[in-house]
Amino acid sequence: MEKKFDRIKAKQLQERVVTPQQAASWIQDGMTLGLSGFTRAGDVKAVPLALVKRAANESFKVNVFTGASLGSDIDRLFAEAGIVNKRLPFQAEPTMRKKINEGDMLFVDHHLSHTAEWIRTGVTETIDFAIVEALSITEDGMIIPTTSVGNSAVFAKHAKNIIVEINTAQPELFEGIHDIYDTGKQGDRLPIPLTAVDQRIGTQGIPVDMEKIRGIVFTEQLDSPSTIVPPDEETKIMADHLLEFLRSEVRAGRLTKKLAPLQSGIGSVANAVLHGMIDSEFEDLEVYSEVLQDAVFDLMDAGKVSFASCCSITLSEPKMQQVYGEFENYRNKIVMRPQEISNHPEIIRRLGLIAINTALEFDMYGNVNSTHVSGTKMMNGIGGSGDFARNSRLAIFVTKSIAKGGNISSVVPFVSHVDHTEHDVDVVVTEQGYADLRGLAPRERVEVILANCVHPTYRAQLREYYDEALTRGGQTPHVLEKAFSWHTDLAKNGTMLQKKEQLV
Amino acid sequence: MEKKFDRIKAKQLQERVVTPQQAASWIQDGMTLGLSGFTRAGDVKAVPLALVKRAANESFKVNVFTGASLGSDIDRLFAEAGIVNKRLPFQAEPTMRKKINEGDMLFVDHHLSHTAEWIRTGVTETIDFAIVEALSITEDGMIIPTTSVGNSAVFAKHAKNIIVEINTAQPELFEGIHDIYDTGKQGDRLPIPLTAVDQRIGTQGIPVDMEKIRGIVFTEQLDSPSTIVPPDEETKIMADHLLEFLRSEVRAGRLTKKLAPLQSGIGSVANAVLHGMIDSEFEDLEVYSEVLQDAVFDLMDAGKVSFASCCSITLSEPKMQQVYGEFENYRNKIVMRPQEISNHPEIIRRLGLIAINTALEFDMYGNVNSTHVSGTKMMNGIGGSGDFARNSRLAIFVTKSIAKGGNISSVVPFVSHVDHTEHDVDVVVTEQGYADLRGLAPRERVEVILANCVHPTYRAQLREYYDEALTRGGQTPHVLEKAFSWHTDLAKNGTMLQKKEQLV
Repeated sequence: MEKKFDRIKAKQLQERVVTPQQAASWIQDGMTLGLSGFTRAGDVKAVPLALVKRAANESFKVNVFTGASLGSDIDRLFAEAGIVNKRLPFQAEPTMRKKINEGDMLFVDHHLSHTAEWIRTGVTETIDFAIVEALSITEDGMIIPTTSVGNSAVFAKHAKNIIVEINTAQPELFEGIHDIYDTGKQGDRLPIPLTAVDQRIGTQGIPVDMEKIRGIVFTEQLDSPSTIVPPDEETKIMADHLLEFLRSEVRAGRLTKKLAPLQSGIGSVANAVLHGMIDSEFEDLEVYSEVLQDAVFDLMDAGKVSFASCCSITLSEPKMQQVYGEFENYRNKIVMRPQEISNHPEIIRRLGLIAINTALEFDMYGNVNSTHVSGTKMMNGIGGSGDFARNSRLAIFVTKSIAKGGNISSVVPFVSHVDHTEHDVDVVVTEQGYADLRGLAPRERVEVILANCVHPTYRAQLREYYDEALTRGGQTPHVLEKAFSWHTDLAKNGTMLQKKEQLV
Repeated sequence: MEKKFDRIKAKQLQERVVTPQQAASWIQDGMTLGLSGFTRAGDVKAVPLALVKRAANESFKVNVFTGASLGSDIDRLFAEAGIVNKRLPFQAEPTMRKKINEGDMLFVDHHLSHTAEWIRTGVTETIDFAIVEALSITEDGMIIPTTSVGNSAVFAKHAKNIIVEINTAQPELFEGIHDIYDTGKQGDRLPIPLTAVDQRIGTQGIPVDMEKIRGIVFTEQLDSPSTIVPPDEETKIMADHLLEFLRSEVRAGRLTKKLAPLQSGIGSVANAVLHGMIDSEFEDLEVYSEVLQDAVFDLMDAGKVSFASCCSITLSEPKMQQVYGEFENYRNKIVMRPQEISNHPEIIRRLGLIAINTALEFDMYGNVNSTHVSGTKMMNGIGGSGDFARNSRLAIFVTKSIAKGGNISSVVPFVSHVDHTEHDVDVVVTEQGYADLRGLAPRERVEVILANCVHPTYRAQLREYYDEALTRGGQTPHVLEKAFSWHTDLAKNGTMLQKKEQLV
């Protein structure tokens, strides 16, 4: 027996080892799959690939439920093969995005903490196969996840069958950092006992009914590295504005230098903003987030972050090498939970997080669009931003004030899609400055956003819209027939700029 | 000493009894008041009135924070006197609404569970005077509320001064039904121990620092009765559709005949829908809601509801007489909590409520507008609908499919204000039928809404918009330049109907 079989400590399961092709052959047209994987981390790799290969000679479609986006080119290959009927709750892959926006596949854009409730109550299709990446299987049949937990536990519990991919390339030192907690059914549920970021409340692996493990596959392949780009001049300035806001909260006595547990959304901007804390006076920070990106480890290295809770770790290639190589230094500072717990309203509100997420655009009243380009085309999905923004102590959204060389303003009269309502957004930050919207009526919000966040190129234009809106009156004045004119001008003229002013 | 002084059991406070005029004289220009009162129940009556009288000879403005809407004409008198600078978090009074929409006063439309967090952390102005209606003050200085709890506890705890209005007209039998729980500060907070609708977790009154009680006023005046209208033919049909949906959930094994704790928004439609359960097969029901309206007591009388948790009781005049007269029969079936607890995401999600709220309009993708007429003019406010919809097991929104004799369709291409996003709305119900949106991609949602909810008069018109939108593509197809055309047509032509079809 090869050494890798030692990873299957429940000996009776060793005979269930199959090839990825065998496992993929069990999947039939119309089935629903629950795949491990959250923002390119801990996704199953071999069985999905074998399934894609089957599609060369066979016509079938499956529903694909995941934690969040998949790496390893799987979402791209799935999309190209045309084998996905419905995908939920999040994706971030260009080819799949195109298929979704062309109406070739269905995408349900779902709060990441909510999917587990649907699975548990059977609102969505029953999961035929949970396919879960693992470091190992324990003697009593617990699946030890790898670099993400995502929805793996709830998939495994409620699926008819389970396929495990044991990935021998994933760092074995990750064993022990997972904390799997099952909330149980609504109406028959105790309080989630978590009251501190570093608290463990569950088991180190996913307890499963061993009878359901139909097959085990071996793989040896690292996660796809993250695609974030390093901080640039503007993201550094945004980080400075955010720090300035946090300082004002300390001065007002609402925060201390320890701040409050930090959540930061996926992507370059949020990563850069978090990175900006390295040289700040803030210290002994805690992170309670979905994904740990490079910045959190940089902050740990700098002695700024003392503990981080997550449901996934997604790193750039160099950072992955460093962190995996020295994981002994990090493993007692990290716990990895199911996304239902990392994103749970109960915990987010109890701990009073500071939530920093990226906006695609926001409007003069503080409504935020996180998902739809010009109101129609899906970018990635809402992800956990709704879970966090609604329930946090501070819901902060960051975006550069302009895009495409100034042809797009990220601050508009009326967002073309609303993911976070005016009731849910506390602070907006651009490279121009920050606007603290808390406690303000809509007409007050316009003034602080105009004064602090809008790019100078668009300031007069937004003021002009607002002045006309004021002639119509209302709690939230608008000129409805022009509310989306910036977006329609962009489609028609390639720019939101309505006058021949100098582009930046 | 008059008998009413017996209501002040902490004898040392008896000397603090003053007239409403004296108490009102302490309030100065620029101050912030925290008033008891939630949907016309348990509001303070005498001091606000005395304050309004002062305004005849004096110019001043105050900020007015409450639980929700006030009764006793106070919001109207405040608005007419022009003494309100800022009002939060909810109102429902026509004169005040007009002032808000004219920009004459500021209104912050806030999730009802969130205001307590702002007060606690000092995000908003410090409360100079908490003015709270009470049945009595206990020996150890606890304030026993009357027909609502609302935000009274958090106001009293964090205010510089407290004025108590002891209302001898309020039913003394209410003593004992209140359950006051303080969550404590974010980050330093235990799980809220509530796991059952009928569980008590707090104290029977509001514990206060007696030193802060600056004055006590006596009043003798019942709450303003609710203004709901009885169920009509259409609301009965809507109730039937909702019952049919709930039956389908029972058939699918996701609910039992006991359903799950019910929340129902304020207003005639939600009341009528709840009323529709009287003759249903559902039984042993529980209510976990903000406001108990007439229907809940009718359901108790019919033996359908076994227990109800609330933060306020708002009844019509005849129902008030009956319920107050026979309160002995109800008091062991009711508990009244702070609105932070009645509306807390932690509890709503744990118990898995069925939340039924009224929409002003919803769109073909399931976004809901609860607040703004034609996107600009405030109706009442979001109230608790966001707290409940986001976190419930089932987020249901009800509205008649048309209004104003058919000139308005409540189902539109794009809602003119978004209070509940497509991510948060499970089921929409009109008198035409219900659409179950769970697990559906946007393009699927359009089809079920078109088939089941849109009034026949508008079906072809909505289909036409959607067909054109499909030519533009996207996850959520729209024709942005026409997205609000139904609303702008209404403003211009008095009707959303674009062709000369027969009005209903």
